[in-house]
Amino acid sequence: MQPDARGLREPARCGYLRSMTQFRFTPLAQSLPATVPFVGPETQERQRGAPFDARLGANENVFGPSPRAIEAMQKADADIWMYGDPENHDLRHALAAHHGISHENIVVGEGIDGLLGYLVRLFVGPGDAVVTSEGAYPTFNYHVAGFGGVLHKVPYVDDHEDPASLFAKAAEVDAKLVYLANPDNPMGTWHAGADIVAAMEALPRGCLLVLDEAYVECAPEGTAAPVAVDDPRLIRMRTFSKAYGMAGARVGYALGASELISAFNKVRNHFGMNRAAQAGALAALRDRNWLTHVQSEISTARGRIAQIAGENGLCSLASATNFVAIDCGQDGVFAKAVLDALIAKGLFVRMPFAAPQNRCIRISCGPTRDLDAFAAALPGALEVARGRADTGA
Amino acid sequence: MQPDARGLREPARCGYLRSMTQFRFTPLAQSLPATVPFVGPETQERQRGAPFDARLGANENVFGPSPRAIEAMQKADADIWMYGDPENHDLRHALAAHHGISHENIVVGEGIDGLLGYLVRLFVGPGDAVVTSEGAYPTFNYHVAGFGGVLHKVPYVDDHEDPASLFAKAAEVDAKLVYLANPDNPMGTWHAGADIVAAMEALPRGCLLVLDEAYVECAPEGTAAPVAVDDPRLIRMRTFSKAYGMAGARVGYALGASELISAFNKVRNHFGMNRAAQAGALAALRDRNWLTHVQSEISTARGRIAQIAGENGLCSLASATNFVAIDCGQDGVFAKAVLDALIAKGLFVRMPFAAPQNRCIRISCGPTRDLDAFAAALPGALEVARGRADTGA
Repeated sequence: MQPDARGLREPARCGYLRSMTQFRFTPLAQSLPATVPFVGPETQERQRGAPFDARLGANENVFGPSPRAIEAMQKADADIWMYGDPENHDLRHALAAHHGISHENIVVGEGIDGLLGYLVRLFVGPGDAVVTSEGAYPTFNYHVAGFGGVLHKVPYVDDHEDPASLFAKAAEVDAKLVYLANPDNPMGTWHAGADIVAAMEALPRGCLLVLDEAYVECAPEGTAAPVAVDDPRLIRMRTFSKAYGMAGARVGYALGASELISAFNKVRNHFGMNRAAQAGALAALRDRNWLTHVQSEISTARGRIAQIAGENGLCSLASATNFVAIDCGQDGVFAKAVLDALIAKGLFVRMPFAAPQNRCIRISCGPTRDLDAFAAALPGALEVARGRADTGA
Repeated sequence: MQPDARGLREPARCGYLRSMTQFRFTPLAQSLPATVPFVGPETQERQRGAPFDARLGANENVFGPSPRAIEAMQKADADIWMYGDPENHDLRHALAAHHGISHENIVVGEGIDGLLGYLVRLFVGPGDAVVTSEGAYPTFNYHVAGFGGVLHKVPYVDDHEDPASLFAKAAEVDAKLVYLANPDNPMGTWHAGADIVAAMEALPRGCLLVLDEAYVECAPEGTAAPVAVDDPRLIRMRTFSKAYGMAGARVGYALGASELISAFNKVRNHFGMNRAAQAGALAALRDRNWLTHVQSEISTARGRIAQIAGENGLCSLASATNFVAIDCGQDGVFAKAVLDALIAKGLFVRMPFAAPQNRCIRISCGPTRDLDAFAAALPGALEVARGRADTGA
């Protein structure tokens, strides 16, 4: 096949020219939908033409980060002309001390989302099997699809992600990865860490457990999996986005065997971390009093959300996270109508994607002001939804 | 093939157990080296046990970002509990107005490094051909290797990346991507944008030009490629890391045809942008006076670096960037000895990777204080290097 006078190779190109795109994307890229795991609240605000009165939909931590973290970021902003340290040395060493492990067992990345992307890239190629729960974290699914993996899903059991079902499915389909969030999002339910470890007896060898502990600082003692950090059966994901209140900073980290952790250096964006975020996370980690304060605020807010649910004749699920799932008592269509009515009243909230969890709406913990707004809006939202249900609209 | 009682699938696993790793990485991931395109200055500081006196090695902009950008970031830090807008709406619209194009022609990402990673992922699979110049940006090469692409390199011509060579090689190997930085890093040389466009007549159809214009705000008028933003033959990379002085914030953007730009939504980390960085970039873009001020400082510093080179009997290359390549007059071994001696004297500097460009060292523009330190250190560094060369050490 010779190039012609213009350097063209017609036979190699014509397939592309005939297809829908003029770009030579990989077959995988061409097959992917342009999708987004979550529509952001700003997008919704632009669509509705007004800001939300309360932002209770993205499990952000409205109580905010440690004032020392804010101060550290503001100080670092003045030096933002410098790239961040690509080794994340100081933060990894502080995390190592905090967890009583080596810094070689820790990789820091652009939020858990970024780290999940790198992890999936390291393990999953076209056709590889991956297991998760129906209705669990969609961004993990986005990455699996994005690298051509084949997702197998098992149902929740009693609103809990179910390790036994997950690991049995993993064995059945010879999965390379199995995803389990503990505590769970979007339901807020949890297992004792020891129960996860016990269930891991059934985790097939050759399948890596991706244990997403994003919310573990909001959970009771004993929720974190009590495993040796060098256990090659799992990798654990942690974040500064939730209890530490720094979602906008994009700082997550993974804990695992040093060989697994070092593999991230093959694919990660080495200079991808924001320098001020590195400094902020370090300061946040050191301010244990603030974390205790936030944990207390979250606990109070969870109680208030449950109380509001109860006042409206609804049940809520016990939660080990910074949000509460409220069972609207009917199906997903009804819960969606409640959600839409809340959004119309200026409250940003979200709900689970999959049945039967989607009978619930999910309310992030917030300060009294925001929860007062929720309390004021919920009765009317339920009324609207019931009206629609009655008329069959 | 049935799972055994423990859910194991021996035949599928034994290959992995026999190999060097216990993890089921993809064959591609397993083949990759754990590498890093650049060793950061912090790593070197830890190794030498002391901070550098001047940071002139990473083409950071020591003159810093607009004070308004710093202020905007500091303000946003207080709201860092919120995720950033995944659509980067405000920044993309401001960039669209700035460039006189549509926001649909702009994708914002975690620096050019992050965007290059997404772009390569969209286009390059195992075995796909990609063309760049010998000694050009290593992070691009890192991404190409990371997705299994095959790199073909052409030499610089007179210290310039050479569009004609690049595009001829692209035709020869049926490349899907060809990388060209204008202005160039690490040499600082440049082509008139119109010359790039004229050379693109020889760009084979089906090959996308990745035109990295990271330094274009430091370059003379007419360096930016005068092309329609919807031209499907190329994508242009821009950044807030260089002239805008925000390397540590991680904000880059790409300009291209809307179909190409929207494809990033298939693979990018939608919530990957730091919220304060979004606000800072927006403020930086609006402060045109500061950009003019920085451009003037860069121009002055380039002159000073050239002057220092001349005072030491060395030639320097004319530069359209925020750094200057100084020709040390001998080979790469000699230049490396000069570099090492400068580093030993507390100056963070870097040098080109490939011959013959590696006869040079590369000095980033800095304030008088930093360049005074360089002027003071260079004669001794040259003496050390010449001493080594004389003794054959």
